[in-house]
Amino acid sequence: MTEIVPGIIDVETRHHVLHINIDRQKKMNAFTPEMFTELGDALTRLDESADLWVGVISFAGKHTTAGLDLPLFGDSMRSGASATVDDKVDVFGLHRRCRKPLVMAVQGVCYTIGIEMMLGCDIVVAADDARFCQLEPKRGLAVFGGANIRYVERAGWGNAMYHLLRADEFNAERALQLGFVQEVVPVGAQVSRAAELAAEIAANAPIAIQAIKASALEYLHNGEAAAVAMIPEIRQRTANSADAAEGLSSFIERRDPVFQGK
Amino acid sequence: MTEIVPGIIDVETRHHVLHINIDRQKKMNAFTPEMFTELGDALTRLDESADLWVGVISFAGKHTTAGLDLPLFGDSMRSGASATVDDKVDVFGLHRRCRKPLVMAVQGVCYTIGIEMMLGCDIVVAADDARFCQLEPKRGLAVFGGANIRYVERAGWGNAMYHLLRADEFNAERALQLGFVQEVVPVGAQVSRAAELAAEIAANAPIAIQAIKASALEYLHNGEAAAVAMIPEIRQRTANSADAAEGLSSFIERRDPVFQGK
Amino acid sequence: MTEIVPGIIDVETRHHVLHINIDRQKKMNAFTPEMFTELGDALTRLDESADLWVGVISFAGKHTTAGLDLPLFGDSMRSGASATVDDKVDVFGLHRRCRKPLVMAVQGVCYTIGIEMMLGCDIVVAADDARFCQLEPKRGLAVFGGANIRYVERAGWGNAMYHLLRADEFNAERALQLGFVQEVVPVGAQVSRAAELAAEIAANAPIAIQAIKASALEYLHNGEAAAVAMIPEIRQRTANSADAAEGLSSFIERRDPVFQGK
Repeated sequence: MTEIVPGIIDVETRHHVLHINIDRQKKMNAFTPEMFTELGDALTRLDESADLWVGVISFAGKHTTAGLDLPLFGDSMRSGASATVDDKVDVFGLHRRCRKPLVMAVQGVCYTIGIEMMLGCDIVVAADDARFCQLEPKRGLAVFGGANIRYVERAGWGNAMYHLLRADEFNAERALQLGFVQEVVPVGAQVSRAAELAAEIAANAPIAIQAIKASALEYLHNGEAAAVAMIPEIRQRTANSADAAEGLSSFIERRDPVFQGK
Repeated sequence: MTEIVPGIIDVETRHHVLHINIDRQKKMNAFTPEMFTELGDALTRLDESADLWVGVISFAGKHTTAGLDLPLFGDSMRSGASATVDDKVDVFGLHRRCRKPLVMAVQGVCYTIGIEMMLGCDIVVAADDARFCQLEPKRGLAVFGGANIRYVERAGWGNAMYHLLRADEFNAERALQLGFVQEVVPVGAQVSRAAELAAEIAANAPIAIQAIKASALEYLHNGEAAAVAMIPEIRQRTANSADAAEGLSSFIERRDPVFQGK
Repeated sequence: MTEIVPGIIDVETRHHVLHINIDRQKKMNAFTPEMFTELGDALTRLDESADLWVGVISFAGKHTTAGLDLPLFGDSMRSGASATVDDKVDVFGLHRRCRKPLVMAVQGVCYTIGIEMMLGCDIVVAADDARFCQLEPKRGLAVFGGANIRYVERAGWGNAMYHLLRADEFNAERALQLGFVQEVVPVGAQVSRAAELAAEIAANAPIAIQAIKASALEYLHNGEAAAVAMIPEIRQRTANSADAAEGLSSFIERRDPVFQGK
């Protein structure tokens, strides 16, 4: 029996930001079931820790990921079960979505689940060498990590079908055009730029940021009336927070606010 | 007790178009509760008057609006109540949306509720000096006028989060790219261009225009099946109108139609 | 009684692709009720035949279509009935949508139902001389073939209203920008390019392709939770297919797969 090359999910906290780095370079960062479990653990910690306000996900080496390490998922796939669903936060955002903002950095080959992970995050920075392909129908498979949903939501029906049905490879500029990524930067700069964006978000009041994400998700999932119905509650919650008082004071005193998430 | 600088909501009718101009330049057009009430009155009149077919909203001076005159809204905000909701048409289109088309012109600083008002309208013309910022989370607050909904609907999840979570300032070109505004014109031309677009719409059959807006809103609010179910009714209503007969006659006689809204 | 110029719906099968060509050039391809019936027959055949995997719709001559041959539809329109709805697949995709991918080629004048047909398809190739206009409100009519839905879904509320309410004519570049078409090619090349795209799709596993379209439609119609709920079933169905085995074998053997739709 061949030993499986393990993947390393490295986690580090800096100034309220949880940095998650994924490393299985020998296998082009192809995912094992264990990597999903560890990534879910990290995202669940981010979701539940009051001191963690934003997450950054990055990938070691030249490539984001070649996708699933397919032989390790065959049985669960054929049985219809998912090897990646439990009660923890999932990186695809299909079952339990992280309530904190997630910024992802991608580069090189970013295939299948690489795309679906980034579209389950909130903001994506792509290196200019990034290449995307949702290639499943070339292998006889449908898509299972949310591309069927996110492509349509981001790019509209026609552009979604243009890429999903052809399973073509497209580049970072096209991904920007489609709204799949928000910035394209020279390769090598993608992780530091993602960290900058995360720091920018972490400088805002976290209760407000989480209320904005929650109410926007309410719209995405349940439509306008449901999102409108949430407004009085988030108005009251944030307007009565210590951070709102700090926001007002800092404005009057012409200084940067220091928020505490309270 | 300091006297509050009043805001003026100027209303004028020209060829079935209601022109609404908002003026509180001393306070960068920051909104008072009274201004919402008067604006709601004007929009309700537009909504209910058979002779008014299109509305144009513009702002006096160099800037659209700095946002709410915050001290005047603190109490209602902290109690969770809205100072701006009653049974009249609301400019954010969150509670009772105007059934007639609304064109808005914006310039200079267009912050917070300025953005949310324009996204509650149908078409927006921006001066090339327009600057947009949904800055609430920098002050400890969530967003309450629909940005959580409209950003996602217009620009897709990633681009919506890119701006909502960072609360950055962006310019007119970027707003065009996001679908937040439909035209960018040299500063000074934004109001006349908005009036031209309104006149173009007012030259079309108003019953048809209102049916198109109503059925598109049905899609936006309740999805495709609901919007499809409306088609037979709007087909019958418009096909049997005097304006449809005039449409056909004018086409045969090779002249411009003169619609009456009947 | 004047005889009605008949329209010809030409149908040809090549390598699992059904090519449908519409020809009523004497009347600028204006549609008669019979043409809708024949087109519905062709699309229903595509939908139901296991050996047909993709459809291409094209239009003979310089123009796509001037729209409905209006005098032939007046009675049904005034009664509120639709002359084009039966239990067959409809080209607008409003009642029974084709489960196989549809690629449309357009050129020249592409008015009213021409736009609505292409937006009811999945991928559109436009000649660079294509001109689009949803002109109904200029004739006193609302829109009945789905423009009220598709414009909003593809382009967002503001851009949708910009064109629907003005009923202006716009060109191929603008249609590309709006996501209404996916490629613009020199006039004359649109049909061959559409055929190329169809062949590219037909080279992928048809069960997977149909599962992707079905699950994306589930999202479009019923939202994210409904589309997520479909994933286990499509995972199991495609992972257990003969084509998935072929996908894996061909990958290992470094050759192109040959799918059978099984």
